Amino acid sequence: MDSTTCLAYAKRQGYRLNVLSIDYGQRHRLELENARKIAMDFGVDDHRIVSIDLRTLGGSALTANVEVPKQRSSTEIGTGIPVTYVPARNTILLSIALGYAETIGAFDLFIGANAIDYSGYPDCRPAFLEAFAALAQLGTKSGVEGEGVYQVHAPLLKLSKAEIIQLGIELGVDYSKTLTCYDPDSTGRACGECDACQLRRKGFEQAQIADPTIYQK
Amino acid sequence: MDSTTCLAYAKRQGYRLNVLSIDYGQRHRLELENARKIAMDFGVDDHRIVSIDLRTLGGSALTANVEVPKQRSSTEIGTGIPVTYVPARNTILLSIALGYAETIGAFDLFIGANAIDYSGYPDCRPAFLEAFAALAQLGTKSGVEGEGVYQVHAPLLKLSKAEIIQLGIELGVDYSKTLTCYDPDSTGRACGECDACQLRRKGFEQAQIADPTIYQK
Repeated sequence: MDSTTCLAYAKRQGYRLNVLSIDYGQRHRLELENARKIAMDFGVDDHRIVSIDLRTLGGSALTANVEVPKQRSSTEIGTGIPVTYVPARNTILLSIALGYAETIGAFDLFIGANAIDYSGYPDCRPAFLEAFAALAQLGTKSGVEGEGVYQVHAPLLKLSKAEIIQLGIELGVDYSKTLTCYDPDSTGRACGECDACQLRRKGFEQAQIADPTIYQK
Repeated sequence: MDSTTCLAYAKRQGYRLNVLSIDYGQRHRLELENARKIAMDFGVDDHRIVSIDLRTLGGSALTANVEVPKQRSSTEIGTGIPVTYVPARNTILLSIALGYAETIGAFDLFIGANAIDYSGYPDCRPAFLEAFAALAQLGTKSGVEGEGVYQVHAPLLKLSKAEIIQLGIELGVDYSKTLTCYDPDSTGRACGECDACQLRRKGFEQAQIADPTIYQK
């Protein structure tokens, strides 16, 4: 939901689109197939999938053999860092995006980090994203040789889920094609009970837009 | 050579050793087997190999189907950014190391970046390494919750290859077990002609230490 809305936003801003998906051993890797179809629909210049097996490191319910929490209350969801946190995930994802950007001569990195993630995930905070752009400038040939200025764009950063959905609908996003669930079944149906499903559902309710998702529960 | 000397240094400093190797699709991935043996010899607490296929991104003679340059003069080696530069490589490697560190509760990251690399690779500069430590603090649960202060240690940063070898010998490193060549043959024999081989050879000469490497040429 977030990545697709972010993509639609970058497209509306007139950027050429080079899309990167990461297969990091996530339980919900079916999202990669969704990403492929969405990238095609958007007519992107290129879509790369980079594989990195973070399961070797363990440490998260998204990659390790740890239960994805279900039916947590909104207070629980909003508090602390959840077990679905993947250590240094956005640092790793942005680093790979930076490698891709440098290879193709791009300087604008878009990431669908948002206000809800922000509450629990340190690597979704504005200070983190700014620090990453500064690092990119120092750590690349293109940055050091002054070919351009790296920027990390996080257009959803301060939006609620409802606002993201409203923005996406305005931009023509078809949310039936996006996968949000951390723990979908083998056919890609959302569980309906993990934090991600709950936040998605509530977002549609608050935006007063019909949710096209088929949930198991 | 650099990584092993760095490991020996960290051991001498009294750190517990958790070693990370990255299989990033490098031509010289035989180095991973060397790393495994070296890690065993050092009696490290743990050794992880994380696979990430950077070949998908292209852009470097170390991962793409581009010739590794041979027999370049020392002026050529010392000037500009070589084609063996992998876009954002150290950013990616350090990010994965950060994910590993956060998983096990470590705060000290050691990297064998050195003065020679420094001349051509932007991501070996002190300012880059400091910026990465700051990013780590901002982008992790452990950093934000104040459990410790991330530091990137690069003990070889200002050493010449000869000085690295002298340090390693002092620390008991057996360099016959290390692989430096960017383009070894299938049995792991060094080519003798790539930049890495030339710098290694010259390092042993300048240190006046017998080079245990078997070179093809």
